[in-house]
Amino acid sequence: MTTNNRSWTVSAQQDVNYRVETTFDILDPANPTLIDGEYGSRRLIVTDTTVDALYGEKIRAYAEANLTEHRILVLPHGESNKRWIAVETVLEAIESFKLDRRREPVIAIGGGVLTDIVGFACSIYRRNTPFVRVPTTLIGIVDASVGVKTGVNFQAGKNKIGTYFAASRSLLDTSFLASLGARHVSNGLAEILKIALIKDRDLFSLLEEHGASARAGRFQQHSDAEQQIIDRAIAGMLEELEPNLWEQNLERLVDYGHSFSPTVEMKALPELLHGEAVCLDMALTTAISVHRGLVSAEQARRVFTVMGKLGLPVSHPAMTVGNLLEGLADTTRHRNGLQRLPLPVGIGAAVFVNDLTPADIAAALEILASAAQFEGAAV
Amino acid sequence: MTTNNRSWTVSAQQDVNYRVETTFDILDPANPTLIDGEYGSRRLIVTDTTVDALYGEKIRAYAEANLTEHRILVLPHGESNKRWIAVETVLEAIESFKLDRRREPVIAIGGGVLTDIVGFACSIYRRNTPFVRVPTTLIGIVDASVGVKTGVNFQAGKNKIGTYFAASRSLLDTSFLASLGARHVSNGLAEILKIALIKDRDLFSLLEEHGASARAGRFQQHSDAEQQIIDRAIAGMLEELEPNLWEQNLERLVDYGHSFSPTVEMKALPELLHGEAVCLDMALTTAISVHRGLVSAEQARRVFTVMGKLGLPVSHPAMTVGNLLEGLADTTRHRNGLQRLPLPVGIGAAVFVNDLTPADIAAALEILASAAQFEGAAV
Ligand SMILES: NC(=O)c1ccc[n+]([C@@H]2O[C@H](COP(=O)([O-])OP(=O)(O)OC[C@H]3O[C@@H](n4cnc5c(N)ncnc54)[C@H](O)[C@@H]3O)[C@@H](O)[C@H]2O)c1
Ligand SMILES: NC(=O)c1ccc[n+]([C@@H]2O[C@H](COP(=O)([O-])OP(=O)(O)OC[C@H]3O[C@@H](n4cnc5c(N)ncnc54)[C@H](O)[C@@H]3O)[C@@H](O)[C@H]2O)c1
Repeated sequence: MTTNNRSWTVSAQQDVNYRVETTFDILDPANPTLIDGEYGSRRLIVTDTTVDALYGEKIRAYAEANLTEHRILVLPHGESNKRWIAVETVLEAIESFKLDRRREPVIAIGGGVLTDIVGFACSIYRRNTPFVRVPTTLIGIVDASVGVKTGVNFQAGKNKIGTYFAASRSLLDTSFLASLGARHVSNGLAEILKIALIKDRDLFSLLEEHGASARAGRFQQHSDAEQQIIDRAIAGMLEELEPNLWEQNLERLVDYGHSFSPTVEMKALPELLHGEAVCLDMALTTAISVHRGLVSAEQARRVFTVMGKLGLPVSHPAMTVGNLLEGLADTTRHRNGLQRLPLPVGIGAAVFVNDLTPADIAAALEILASAAQFEGAAV
Repeated sequence: MTTNNRSWTVSAQQDVNYRVETTFDILDPANPTLIDGEYGSRRLIVTDTTVDALYGEKIRAYAEANLTEHRILVLPHGESNKRWIAVETVLEAIESFKLDRRREPVIAIGGGVLTDIVGFACSIYRRNTPFVRVPTTLIGIVDASVGVKTGVNFQAGKNKIGTYFAASRSLLDTSFLASLGARHVSNGLAEILKIALIKDRDLFSLLEEHGASARAGRFQQHSDAEQQIIDRAIAGMLEELEPNLWEQNLERLVDYGHSFSPTVEMKALPELLHGEAVCLDMALTTAISVHRGLVSAEQARRVFTVMGKLGLPVSHPAMTVGNLLEGLADTTRHRNGLQRLPLPVGIGAAVFVNDLTPADIAAALEILASAAQFEGAAV
């Protein structure tokens, strides 16, 4: 603290530490991972209706075998239920369960919607209530359960309200993916591909070679390649997040694929899933890089081919110059007046630019139109 | 980040910096303090109905003279309106004002209730929206606008939901106190006395000598003594808060007066104001210290006399052994199983104890009963 002429300046540092770990058969009653021995034996578990229908019996059997007391709160599934009312429902459950927040972390089992809601509720209940995340979707495993962002939608705004709050532990078990719909697997693969394109050429090779079979088998071979795809995606994501956890630096590589996509996703609602819109954005920016000589035609062909193999689109009617310029303007506003647009350089590297023009976008759309005819690319 | 056998540990540090500064005539249109030149010229201003009735015209005149665009949101005043719905009202106003959060900090003008609500809303809107606090009560000036806690009540729980979030600036102007009700002045003086008793013997002397006149004149003499009372209280508070901003250390000197008082305040609702309940707690613990030989009878007499001069009570029918033990049990639970009870040592120092017994409390109540007859002490 410094004092000066009746004014005071306060400076402090908050340490944040959390762990992300892979595990298998987390709901096997003999697996102690979920209930860390030290923590005691009462738990509030929150999940959603879909996950409850699929795994509710196993969750209950696990709880009965390992806990002296538990309550399972089931929230309605889906993005349209990602609203304050769901947060309030969690807060009420915490309150009525008389949770001892120092010993009894809340357990969230579900996709990104569910873990974002529960994380928000825990972050504000008495300003800090520990929770554990168990993601059950691929987006959850490689993205939503890896960082520290929580939140819900407010009015028309996606994730407009929320907090930065780390789960004490994120427990990743790919066996949940066995029941996941094919489009949701592709949805998660889009975020994995993002990491490959901006910073990990080996991950790209893995996707080229094993992406299609991992997708078809929903990551249930538990092969070395499948593990590596997951692990490299998580490690790459965390490397980018850790030095910029509170997003003070607006040049974020992990924003790749997220510059035009929010607007495209909104315009095409509810047709496109988030990962599909992200892939359209990555296809567009790959084409922009071709136009600017940053990516070769051959590299672009490989990228578009992998997108197809992963069940992701490279073009869509909502990808018009008008929509894309609107998206870029909105993103520029959120990035404090500069485009800060990540563009791929070859495969596995990227650069930020601030000088994109409508002509770049038009040229890229033409490149994409021909790319859509490539063998293997889904349109 | 450390990686180990398919698990990752993330470690990061968040820097928090904020400024608390005193100012005069902040609503004088010629005073540039409120609208920091750098920030631009649109502002959303939030206040409450009481403050609006008293200062609304001045606020509007200030805004019209200094801003190209503004909106004034008036929330219903009072603790019973410190609820989520008020936070949502602020969020809606931020949204409809199309606030540019990087250039246009929200301005909160009001007591602790208002600044806690606005701070909560700003902390969650896009996970971080800067705001400026202008406290208009004495509690606000020496306490609520000095730290980083935001929040609202939830169900029966006081401040049950909220965040740690620093206002970029807190602008303290004691001229607002001219209109403050006498009990609300005493309410703030209780928190000032708290700092004096635990850590600042000079501040205690100032209160002994000038407390009664500062109270009677609502701090409008702007004398050196009045400034020192305010400044020492703030500096003392910040010294305690800064190294423990996120309250990880449960031994907090600033919890002095807040061990038994939450329960007493609840039991006597709505009769006692917060500061009055805090003073009862401080009177009790002073008596406990007399019983334990940590405070002399003469020191205690001086303390009780100052309480009386500040218009604060030293005894109350709700101060029964039963209620006090209930309060201690609840506090012990929140302090993770230990009492961690701050007890005064002489005047201006304190110690933490964990071994308080019902007999200590009974003995202290007897000491208090005779103290209530001291000259100058209000009962
Ligand atoms: N916090 C972050 O950093 C972050 C990062 C990425 C995405 N997100 C958020 O995550 C959400 C998208 O994630 P998501 O796709 O996991 O959403 P989701 O939670 O809605 O899951 C998608 C669907 O799959 C169902 N489901 C979940 N697990 C299943 C399983 N094992 N088998 C079958 N069905 C299952 C769900 O009930 C839901 O209907 C968005 O709201 C996004 O904002 C957050
Ligand atoms: N965040 C923190 O660290 C912190 C610290 C202490 C207290 N608090 C909170 O602050 C609240 C108590 O503070 P408070 O007493 O300022 O509450 P308050 O905001 O309710 O103010 C008390 C009353 O005075 C009125 N008022 C405000 N300014 C006035 C003025 N200049 N003239 C006349 N009337 C005026 C208000 O409208 C209200 O009716 C509690 O909710 C408490 O939880 C928070």
